Amino acid sequence: MKKLVNIILLFSLSFLAMGQQISSPNGELQLDFELKEGVPYYSLNYKNKPIILPSKLGLELKGKSDFTSGFVISNADKREFDETWEPVWGEEKSIRNHYNEMTLTLHQDAEHDHRTLVIRFRLFDDGLGFRYEFPSQPNLAHFIISDEKTQFAMAGDHTAFWIPGDYDTQEYDYVESKLSEIRTLMTQAITANVSQTSFSPTGVQTSLMMKTKDGLYINLHEAALIDYATMHLNLDDEKMIFESWLTPNANGDKVYLQSPSVSPWRTIIVSDDARDILASRITYNLNEPNKIEDTSWIKPMKYVGVWWEMITGKSSWAYTDEFPAVKLGVTDYSKAKPNGKHGATTANVKRYIDFAAEHGFDGVLVEGWNIGWEDWFGNAKDYVFDFVTPYPDFDLEGVRDYAKVKGVEMIMHHETSSSVRNYERQIDKAYQFMKDNGYNAVKSGYVGTILPFGDNHYSQWQVNHYQYAIEKAAEYQIMVNAHEAVRPTGIGRTFPNLIANESARGTEYQAFGGSKPNHVTVLPFTRQIGGPMDYTPGIFEMDVSKLNPDNNSWVNSTIANQLALYVTMYSPLQMAADLPENYERFMDAFQFIKDVGLDWEKSVYLEAEPGYYLTIARKEKGTGNWFLGNVNGNEGRTVEIKFDFLEAGKKYEAIIYSDTKDAHYRNNPQAYEIKKIKLTSKSKLSQYSAPGGGFAISIMEVQ
Amino acid sequence: MKKLVNIILLFSLSFLAMGQQISSPNGELQLDFELKEGVPYYSLNYKNKPIILPSKLGLELKGKSDFTSGFVISNADKREFDETWEPVWGEEKSIRNHYNEMTLTLHQDAEHDHRTLVIRFRLFDDGLGFRYEFPSQPNLAHFIISDEKTQFAMAGDHTAFWIPGDYDTQEYDYVESKLSEIRTLMTQAITANVSQTSFSPTGVQTSLMMKTKDGLYINLHEAALIDYATMHLNLDDEKMIFESWLTPNANGDKVYLQSPSVSPWRTIIVSDDARDILASRITYNLNEPNKIEDTSWIKPMKYVGVWWEMITGKSSWAYTDEFPAVKLGVTDYSKAKPNGKHGATTANVKRYIDFAAEHGFDGVLVEGWNIGWEDWFGNAKDYVFDFVTPYPDFDLEGVRDYAKVKGVEMIMHHETSSSVRNYERQIDKAYQFMKDNGYNAVKSGYVGTILPFGDNHYSQWQVNHYQYAIEKAAEYQIMVNAHEAVRPTGIGRTFPNLIANESARGTEYQAFGGSKPNHVTVLPFTRQIGGPMDYTPGIFEMDVSKLNPDNNSWVNSTIANQLALYVTMYSPLQMAADLPENYERFMDAFQFIKDVGLDWEKSVYLEAEPGYYLTIARKEKGTGNWFLGNVNGNEGRTVEIKFDFLEAGKKYEAIIYSDTKDAHYRNNPQAYEIKKIKLTSKSKLSQYSAPGGGFAISIMEVQ
Repeated sequence: MKKLVNIILLFSLSFLAMGQQISSPNGELQLDFELKEGVPYYSLNYKNKPIILPSKLGLELKGKSDFTSGFVISNADKREFDETWEPVWGEEKSIRNHYNEMTLTLHQDAEHDHRTLVIRFRLFDDGLGFRYEFPSQPNLAHFIISDEKTQFAMAGDHTAFWIPGDYDTQEYDYVESKLSEIRTLMTQAITANVSQTSFSPTGVQTSLMMKTKDGLYINLHEAALIDYATMHLNLDDEKMIFESWLTPNANGDKVYLQSPSVSPWRTIIVSDDARDILASRITYNLNEPNKIEDTSWIKPMKYVGVWWEMITGKSSWAYTDEFPAVKLGVTDYSKAKPNGKHGATTANVKRYIDFAAEHGFDGVLVEGWNIGWEDWFGNAKDYVFDFVTPYPDFDLEGVRDYAKVKGVEMIMHHETSSSVRNYERQIDKAYQFMKDNGYNAVKSGYVGTILPFGDNHYSQWQVNHYQYAIEKAAEYQIMVNAHEAVRPTGIGRTFPNLIANESARGTEYQAFGGSKPNHVTVLPFTRQIGGPMDYTPGIFEMDVSKLNPDNNSWVNSTIANQLALYVTMYSPLQMAADLPENYERFMDAFQFIKDVGLDWEKSVYLEAEPGYYLTIARKEKGTGNWFLGNVNGNEGRTVEIKFDFLEAGKKYEAIIYSDTKDAHYRNNPQAYEIKKIKLTSKSKLSQYSAPGGGFAISIMEVQ
Repeated sequence: MKKLVNIILLFSLSFLAMGQQISSPNGELQLDFELKEGVPYYSLNYKNKPIILPSKLGLELKGKSDFTSGFVISNADKREFDETWEPVWGEEKSIRNHYNEMTLTLHQDAEHDHRTLVIRFRLFDDGLGFRYEFPSQPNLAHFIISDEKTQFAMAGDHTAFWIPGDYDTQEYDYVESKLSEIRTLMTQAITANVSQTSFSPTGVQTSLMMKTKDGLYINLHEAALIDYATMHLNLDDEKMIFESWLTPNANGDKVYLQSPSVSPWRTIIVSDDARDILASRITYNLNEPNKIEDTSWIKPMKYVGVWWEMITGKSSWAYTDEFPAVKLGVTDYSKAKPNGKHGATTANVKRYIDFAAEHGFDGVLVEGWNIGWEDWFGNAKDYVFDFVTPYPDFDLEGVRDYAKVKGVEMIMHHETSSSVRNYERQIDKAYQFMKDNGYNAVKSGYVGTILPFGDNHYSQWQVNHYQYAIEKAAEYQIMVNAHEAVRPTGIGRTFPNLIANESARGTEYQAFGGSKPNHVTVLPFTRQIGGPMDYTPGIFEMDVSKLNPDNNSWVNSTIANQLALYVTMYSPLQMAADLPENYERFMDAFQFIKDVGLDWEKSVYLEAEPGYYLTIARKEKGTGNWFLGNVNGNEGRTVEIKFDFLEAGKKYEAIIYSDTKDAHYRNNPQAYEIKKIKLTSKSKLSQYSAPGGGFAISIMEVQ
């Protein structure tokens, strides 16, 4: 009887067309799917121009027959979906999730064990998401993906903003080049990092931003990276075909799965206007809705912290220089001679708390407060931190009480040193310790090579760890800001307690030799496609040697550029990273950081060109104030702004923080000027930005 | 000033002799240490016969200069130590720890970074222990051991009882052969296991038991394996030199250490009487004293359990056959069709509880009680068990209450499926669940390949996990019986809540094709040198097909042999592994299992020959009853017993459970006879044991 059903099924299958297609709701994008001799292909067109040429889909399974061919289409479902949802925090108050969906059920022949693979496509007006789905089936109950063979065939030798593919870090400067030039430029693109594993001379990371000769913008990334390996892209630079390249576990396997399960979504955002890339919410829309019922404890925060002084080398995380090796619970700090440079002293932290309280900041981060920093790094040390024991010169309870009186929240710091097992062993105790002492947010770090050596930061194994920490933190009502973790893929929709990540080259590199002046014009098109970045802007003293004579690094930015970042680098968590004494020298400019909003009713992308400039205006939730930011690339440029995004008929007063004409990120970074002007929705402004500069404008309604 | 001190130190060093030696307290063993051209060597003599010929000592460090040469002796400390300590459980009430110690501080020259290595030798009357110590020093703060180069140079082509070296299993039958024959016999010695990784055609495991041509017994093992990789031995079969071979982590590194730290002890037990090997307490003596303050909750236990019926295939761990893959928390068992074979049903478990209560057993083990067994094995499944959710047909609370009324303790089962991260994530919840439900002991299992693939059961990483589980259990006052974990190295002294391990080929293999009839005459000389084994003896029905027609395995043992194991295989945890219905057929023989002691005032090793026979008498703590066991090898044999270990002048009544003359492990295993006799300390007995047979005697004083 069962056999008969199978025969009928197979018979009926043969009637399904081998080609299927859908269009985006507005009709501008068209997705075509085709089986050629049993092999699945898809292609994507935008306004009748090819974005993805016919590209193969499929996977290789370890020890099992081929999963890339021998398919027929056994079912095709199409539907339209349209909803609007409200994020807990974000660039706008509500997000529309509108797509046409096509779900294809593919069936393999007897030679391939009669397996079923579902491919689900969601075509939005701003791009495509698709994923593999593995329905429950006896012949595919548990399996190991040895390679994912998803192709993205480019229609030309596009310009790309790329960083080297790497299993362990994204902390690279972006390179702008033709796809065909990647191979030649790779070696110099791979700058030193404390943990890095590149894999191919044409391997790059996502999100990858590209621009075609005829002015199309294409972004490749992934959404909802859950229980899967992080995807990189490897380029066949003869054919201009990218193929998915998954990060391996310790033994080289890519993904362990069982059915039913799904892959992350592979995303292709497309437009002929770069602003649409920034405005796209595909990545969030492809994630599951919020799973945290009570979100009242998730709150955007503006913070200062004991951090930049360590990054620059002015002070140290470590308490003493006496111990070549520390054993937690054994090493006796009480008898150690302090090194005199420790940043996280009670007195210094109280200074930051005072500063935060005086200027209306929500929180103070303290790094180097807990014992173990003397040998924390690069030593393959398992029990490296306990996350609950303060140094002798840090009165945790005293500071806690002091901050409470001052109305400031303390932000916890958990550096795992990539000793991930140790972190998991301590995590309940560490989170409970936070709650017991009134900490509601944690900055976590994964510096160094994953322990035990052999695994990678972006493997399925570690991806599952980061997710474990996020979900565990949610149980404790703790917000997470994870550094050196895998780059985000919109998971902040589902777990909005993931309020930020670093997972890219952050401001710290300005103290490690400097980043490219146009770095911040690229990040919103790449790293931030997946979620907010704790970029830690707000550096006012660009000459790092002023803080530490032994450090000759230079912050490649102007003060006006630094201010603009609070608008252009969206994050519900924003640090004012410089030292209080540096802010005190420029209190007029600092006023913008104090004023700027954190959570937005809406965002207007006024102009954008990756690598060159972007100008964004955002309306703050609650106050109705607007804030506008422009960041500029390597050359000086004048921006023409129309304020027609303002409400017609209303009067506004604006404060403009801008570069002077002679400002320059390298020679004259502190040359800014502040002007007050009146604005209406009919106003226009012509505003200059210096090389590596920018401007910031706060706009308040005049009653 | 510091420089001057160094010069003086170096100057003074040159006066220390390059050769150093000590003798054992009784003078029979002599240890010689020598530096030959800066390379450390040791040798060991017993009654003027060479046991270890001059053998190199040292280690290779990853990325650092040579740590095997360039040494001078900068200090030599010698001392005698003598103490007597009382174990929480054991083969005797008190243990003497008596040795002469020599601690050599070796200093390397400038070419080798001026590093210091300490080698500590402890010479007992029954053997040698030595270890490496790494004092705190700037040039050796953190380091990676890429190889330990400890040699054990044999003085001849000895007979060895060995199993293949393997990173993942010790579940092999022992091979008796000349050392020179290991290479030839290796392939056939490597029988199939679900997780196994051999590494060399002459690699063998410890503890390794050897016998020389002139009748000396030599045992090589290690003690106090803590935060280090498990040692194997690799034989140079030209020169008959064993060298330490450490189990690698996932990336091939052996050990991550920081100073100060120590290696495990390498042990060499020596005698011309095999009984002394069994009586040696070197392994315990080289471990740290008990670290658990209140040990009142650590109690030897005799137990039955729902286990052998699954091992034989009569019943199943899994509840249903319907799910190709299970997702805990998602898969709905309530709607699944039971497979009708599930062992851990409420009714069946109550049957075991009734049986345990009726016959005075302390506990009942239940395997397969918790959801997840449908796809638990071999599927690289991360979240494989939650350790708290019972199957629908197992009323955990009802069973708990029923057992309590019956005065029987339930024993928890945690099969990790080698998904070790998952176990650590659940461990607090799982242990708390045990305490909440009155469980005080857990049998844990590590079946299958370690997740993520790439790591090994016996690596430093996993060794640290087993230790973590033991110490965590101690916090909860839980006793641990770990199966498939690393073989013990005397850690039960320090953490006596580690009441047993499997970690060798246990009784289960009698249902997987059978073990050699003489297997149990070898285990006390090998696996049990490190600690008690949960061998799960007591099988009365040798024809496994009687339980499961599809299983033609045969238990290579007689009933009398099975009884003797309760004496010869020392363990504070003893199972009566067979089914109640099989015991009910032989209640007269079963009486011995009911009577036999678990914890001992003293043990007398009456005769012993590895691979052939051993006869042990033990006096029970508290009662003063004696129990005697003999297990026999492949050939029938008559034992002559003198009862002069009994107290002079007292009268005893003994019950002898022995093979009949025609008994045979294969043809006639259930042929036993039971006799009662009177005994005094002057009595003698001539008692036959069949091939694969033995006898058991209980001896009670007559008032």
